[in-house]
Amino acid sequence: MRGKFIVLEGPDSAGKSTQLELLSREFSRRGIRAIATKEPGGTELGKALRKLVLSPGREVVPLAELFIMLADRAQHVEELIRPALSSGTWVISSRYTLSSLAYQGYGRGLPLDLIRELNRIATGGLVPDHTFLLDIPPEVALERGRLGDRLEREGLDFLRRVREAYLRLIEEVPNSHVIDATKPPEEVCREMLEHLGLA
Amino acid sequence: MRGKFIVLEGPDSAGKSTQLELLSREFSRRGIRAIATKEPGGTELGKALRKLVLSPGREVVPLAELFIMLADRAQHVEELIRPALSSGTWVISSRYTLSSLAYQGYGRGLPLDLIRELNRIATGGLVPDHTFLLDIPPEVALERGRLGDRLEREGLDFLRRVREAYLRLIEEVPNSHVIDATKPPEEVCREMLEHLGLA
Repeated sequence: MRGKFIVLEGPDSAGKSTQLELLSREFSRRGIRAIATKEPGGTELGKALRKLVLSPGREVVPLAELFIMLADRAQHVEELIRPALSSGTWVISSRYTLSSLAYQGYGRGLPLDLIRELNRIATGGLVPDHTFLLDIPPEVALERGRLGDRLEREGLDFLRRVREAYLRLIEEVPNSHVIDATKPPEEVCREMLEHLGLA
Repeated sequence: MRGKFIVLEGPDSAGKSTQLELLSREFSRRGIRAIATKEPGGTELGKALRKLVLSPGREVVPLAELFIMLADRAQHVEELIRPALSSGTWVISSRYTLSSLAYQGYGRGLPLDLIRELNRIATGGLVPDHTFLLDIPPEVALERGRLGDRLEREGLDFLRRVREAYLRLIEEVPNSHVIDATKPPEEVCREMLEHLGLA
């Protein structure tokens, strides 16, 4: 049987990495074979692209940034996600198509329809079975103290725009749920398991 | 007055770099301000992307390779080519949109219409004023002794396919000319200058 494809979306410091770990553990407990991965950087190519685009002082125009994210995604889907799902392994990915719409669309001002079309091309039409938006206000993320770099680069307004973008975008995604990520990690995880019918 | 945008296309070892130099010198002699550049690698971002995608042993699926080339192109057009042309500087680029059609299309088998559409997006519709195809059979390029790496990676069949692709593709390009690149470099350059009305 085909594995399920589960995506965690949301701004920096929403706790996506923590939830990847918690979900992996819970899946393993239930005997579900699962891979935890992320974008950008879920493959060797992706790791190199991530490093390249996040280099301090690197000048990257919005459209080039989008194409780099799409290169990462195309490689991720073809090399890792599709083969895993086909073999019955579940895949949990931190970030997927919605992140491009939030960051390069609402954040950088590229046309949303263009990004939707390019997402479709990069993924070959692969859509998640479940998408969770870990929602958190930038101010709270800031208190968690892990927004330093991004905040310095982008400013608080950018982070607010991205958060609003996610809340708007998630409404058009089938099988999606907004999770209040200011709650304790265990509770956030339990909520997701409930939505997956695994609680 | 807007500068002219001139593109040299053709397989490896056709002499594109040599012709970039010769054309630059001839332009300079005639008092034409010109920039010689290339794809991939015409910008700092492009240089990093080029290095990344050409790393030996790096696994890159065709669609990811295409998106990386498009990221390079988007950055190249926005950061370097458009500003130069606007300021009246001529731009000579080794490789542009046709290379993606030849290598990722005919070479790797991605759909040509998809590449055409993505090229249009990456360039914002910027098309060259003149395109020269430096045509050379792989066997002759081989004798020039600079095909080692590519030949090892791709094989002779791939190189033959790319050459045929260029000859077919160039027919649909306005203001394009096929130049016999087996001729001596000075003669190749003189032919191009004639087509540019500068001989």
